[in-house]
Amino acid sequence: MRAVQISAYDGKPESLSVVDLPMPRPGPGEVLVKVFASPVNPSDLMFLQGLYGFKKPLPAVPGFEGSGTVVDAGPGMMGRLLKGKRVACAAADERIVGGMWAEYLVTSAKLCIPLRKDVDLEQGAVMLVNPMTAWGLMEEARRGGHKALVQTAAASALGRMIVRLGQMFSLPVINIVHRPQQVELLRSLGAQYVLNSEEPEFETKLRELCHRLNATIGFDAVAGDLSLKVLRAQPRGARLLVYGALSLSPSQADPASLIFDGKRIEGFWLSAWLNRKSLIGQLRVARQVQKLLSSALKTEFQARLRLNDTPRGLHQYATNMTGGKVLLLASSPENPAP
Amino acid sequence: MRAVQISAYDGKPESLSVVDLPMPRPGPGEVLVKVFASPVNPSDLMFLQGLYGFKKPLPAVPGFEGSGTVVDAGPGMMGRLLKGKRVACAAADERIVGGMWAEYLVTSAKLCIPLRKDVDLEQGAVMLVNPMTAWGLMEEARRGGHKALVQTAAASALGRMIVRLGQMFSLPVINIVHRPQQVELLRSLGAQYVLNSEEPEFETKLRELCHRLNATIGFDAVAGDLSLKVLRAQPRGARLLVYGALSLSPSQADPASLIFDGKRIEGFWLSAWLNRKSLIGQLRVARQVQKLLSSALKTEFQARLRLNDTPRGLHQYATNMTGGKVLLLASSPENPAP
Repeated sequence: MRAVQISAYDGKPESLSVVDLPMPRPGPGEVLVKVFASPVNPSDLMFLQGLYGFKKPLPAVPGFEGSGTVVDAGPGMMGRLLKGKRVACAAADERIVGGMWAEYLVTSAKLCIPLRKDVDLEQGAVMLVNPMTAWGLMEEARRGGHKALVQTAAASALGRMIVRLGQMFSLPVINIVHRPQQVELLRSLGAQYVLNSEEPEFETKLRELCHRLNATIGFDAVAGDLSLKVLRAQPRGARLLVYGALSLSPSQADPASLIFDGKRIEGFWLSAWLNRKSLIGQLRVARQVQKLLSSALKTEFQARLRLNDTPRGLHQYATNMTGGKVLLLASSPENPAP
Repeated sequence: MRAVQISAYDGKPESLSVVDLPMPRPGPGEVLVKVFASPVNPSDLMFLQGLYGFKKPLPAVPGFEGSGTVVDAGPGMMGRLLKGKRVACAAADERIVGGMWAEYLVTSAKLCIPLRKDVDLEQGAVMLVNPMTAWGLMEEARRGGHKALVQTAAASALGRMIVRLGQMFSLPVINIVHRPQQVELLRSLGAQYVLNSEEPEFETKLRELCHRLNATIGFDAVAGDLSLKVLRAQPRGARLLVYGALSLSPSQADPASLIFDGKRIEGFWLSAWLNRKSLIGQLRVARQVQKLLSSALKTEFQARLRLNDTPRGLHQYATNMTGGKVLLLASSPENPAP
């Protein structure tokens, strides 16, 4: 089978190649998935650079999420039940040897979610990372009784989902972007509060909005000194959840915000968030997210490429993350997934 | 009455003077305290520079804590009960107009704690800020079921109290200092784990100790990139409580620590911590702390100066914080507090 493989965690193009690998075989509790498609996510870029939460033994196949069809199963009831089913699945676990930028993948049956009939394999391929994370973050905001939220990287695929979920749940969202075009983009989606962090008076305006709307929770995918600016602008007792680090810099926090205003900085990781839920709780989230994949949690694509074109896809995505997801298609059109 | 006064929040010597002010009069719920002594604390230095959690209207009298005798009371039962009593008291509240670097102070009766007979007015003068904070931090560690703790600025007055409380409660303390003499000092107090942050291999050794002892809680008075190093060294799920910022830099946190390892950075402020307790809870803390003022929570002094010598005292303290507290004496020996 064809697969993308990396030989080093340095993020360099020359460390990445498309190779032929032996067909993997599912063990107990595992399934063999014929992959249809897998996206390039910021978390994949972090993985390629060795900056993700874990590393897999080298050479490694990247690709943390995707969609496909379960074509074989090892011993175990869950795997047998999944056989023949269209699934969204994940390889974002250090115990899973393979990755989703490949024609086939062996993964744990527990990391596969059967897709509803009305969900196509493209939206299914991008269902786990962004829509689930957006849903999880929004659940933190709703369960915590917060009256409004503030988010950085608001023009990202995930940021736009938060905007739409905010509209759906009537929860005001203060959106922070760093380019004028992103302000326009978000306004066209109906976002009411959009601030450009590169403009003068940004901090003053942010503080005014955060206090007026009482944005006691924040989602930050940028880190660096933007964490500090957001935390400082938030009202007393606020929480800032860091879920990404696009700036590749440490999150900063003003000691006065922490000490005198009782604010705090935490992380948000989908895997850990899901692990804290019961199986029933996880299935409920998966059902709710699937229902919204054609509306609030819909992903836009800027390109659909073959596995062979992965280097081009990585470059295109890294230079224009706002343009939409890049989807890597593993099944050729002549041989579509059943 | 004589009092120290500042005309600007710039921390400059020329903004500070010793002046004659009219005698303040206690209103309802307030008492007039004839001040015996008041220390210089890091929080006072922050206040002088405008970096504390609040500012008082200028010109302002500094001094957040001290001891003295209640010589008069405004209407209200609590004040009447305190009359004639030796007390530890606080002016660390933006609603209190005066400060403790003065011969007299009007403060809320609620901010006065009667001293036990065996507590002298010198230890009483430094009882609220350091001993109470050390006790509060240690209570967080004990109530949270943590197996060990790690602290920065471990050679400070407060850091040494944490060392002794750790011995008292058999809770291992990993101590971080930044000078070889401080390593010696802590070893002479019986501290088992002492690391110098300026030495090579500091981070490796810190990580090894934090993991081996399972130091899932940390106390940080330095902030800056030391916050990042400590948080990164701690095991999964750890909390770092920032209670000071001696580096005058923002606390930093590695996004991977926050996201993948579920660690978080919070602040600790004695005022907020006490406010979350009932009156009974506050009195219990005050009683426990007073019992330990001659042992685990004893403060060492490097100088006792008159109010007129405040500028010299500030300089001496700021250049040698490890040497002990500087105490400002407001009552002359010819006229001691009754």
